[in-house]
Amino acid sequence: MQFTDEPVDADEARRQRARYEPFTEAVRDLIDATIRTQAGAADIAAAQRSIEAVTARLRATQIDGPYGVQFTTEGDGMSWGNPVIGVRNPMAPPLRVESDGARCWAEFDLGAAYEGPPNHVHGGVSALILDHLLGEAASAGGNTPVFTGTISIKYLRGTPLGALRAEAWVERVDGIKSYARGVISDITGITVEADGVFITPQWARDPR
Amino acid sequence: MQFTDEPVDADEARRQRARYEPFTEAVRDLIDATIRTQAGAADIAAAQRSIEAVTARLRATQIDGPYGVQFTTEGDGMSWGNPVIGVRNPMAPPLRVESDGARCWAEFDLGAAYEGPPNHVHGGVSALILDHLLGEAASAGGNTPVFTGTISIKYLRGTPLGALRAEAWVERVDGIKSYARGVISDITGITVEADGVFITPQWARDPR
Repeated sequence: MQFTDEPVDADEARRQRARYEPFTEAVRDLIDATIRTQAGAADIAAAQRSIEAVTARLRATQIDGPYGVQFTTEGDGMSWGNPVIGVRNPMAPPLRVESDGARCWAEFDLGAAYEGPPNHVHGGVSALILDHLLGEAASAGGNTPVFTGTISIKYLRGTPLGALRAEAWVERVDGIKSYARGVISDITGITVEADGVFITPQWARDPR
Repeated sequence: MQFTDEPVDADEARRQRARYEPFTEAVRDLIDATIRTQAGAADIAAAQRSIEAVTARLRATQIDGPYGVQFTTEGDGMSWGNPVIGVRNPMAPPLRVESDGARCWAEFDLGAAYEGPPNHVHGGVSALILDHLLGEAASAGGNTPVFTGTISIKYLRGTPLGALRAEAWVERVDGIKSYARGVISDITGITVEADGVFITPQWARDPR
């Protein structure tokens, strides 16, 4: 498990983002429509032919495997395929994580694609988001790779679909272990709490 | 939080599934291609116009909100929008959960859309899948609605992308609380373990 790709020039990274991010947003919107449509059989068959034609065009030039994590020449990580923050992953909300050094947070909106109980966020989606955000806090904003050791999640009540906020911070660091906490809140308060232990892997313990 | 929609006739449910499931699979394949494509700006712009046109056609006739959980007249739950098992949710792998009464399990394949560390499953995706599968075990195959109270997840090592298996079972039941356990395994053994407490909600405690 290594991050070995050649770094991408920062201007080229900006060009790629301008090209792919709006397209990914269009596919994200399609996911929502795919779940909610009541279109009839003929319309769905036509839509399927269109989608398959687009996919074939996209696949004519594609990387061999998954996206991985690429870096720019300025050292910024491009986790563009990530299922939580990836600007090229249509299944990511995506979270745009902000940080003041001590805490990191994101405000986001979850719709039909993230539903478990009717009108509520799937409990596992809350776990996915908290795992990611606690990991970001533990990795000091992505500067040090970390892996989740353990995470415990407590559901105080159902989390409604719609506008939400998540926040995470490190409680303490003990050698290679960082102890992080975090919450998801709706407009009336906290709905889910998480505690996690994150580990810095051997190969990342020396400065890059 | 209620399951109040009128039940769907079983034949109509089969017709809907035949119509929407292959289309959803096509959108799922598009998600993978969206992450991995290296197509140029003109091709991406053309692809975006095609996708937006399809989305507009789908949205011309759609339900007002998220999918929810519908039931057939035979009492089968149709969690078709669910992000883990939903046959109409392109972000779901989807898991096809089997059960022998005591245990439930699923074999599935995770690709680029589920990647965290390079070539490995995002820790939060493992949490999403385990939360769902432990919940299925605790709800006796979906017959009793349950909500996650707490879940603790332990990562033994990285989970590689590719062919995986997840399994869950109930360890014990104590009143309205079910204690469930589960694991994710790759070809060489267990990569992630989970323990969860699931709660039967008040409104579901009397027989339907």
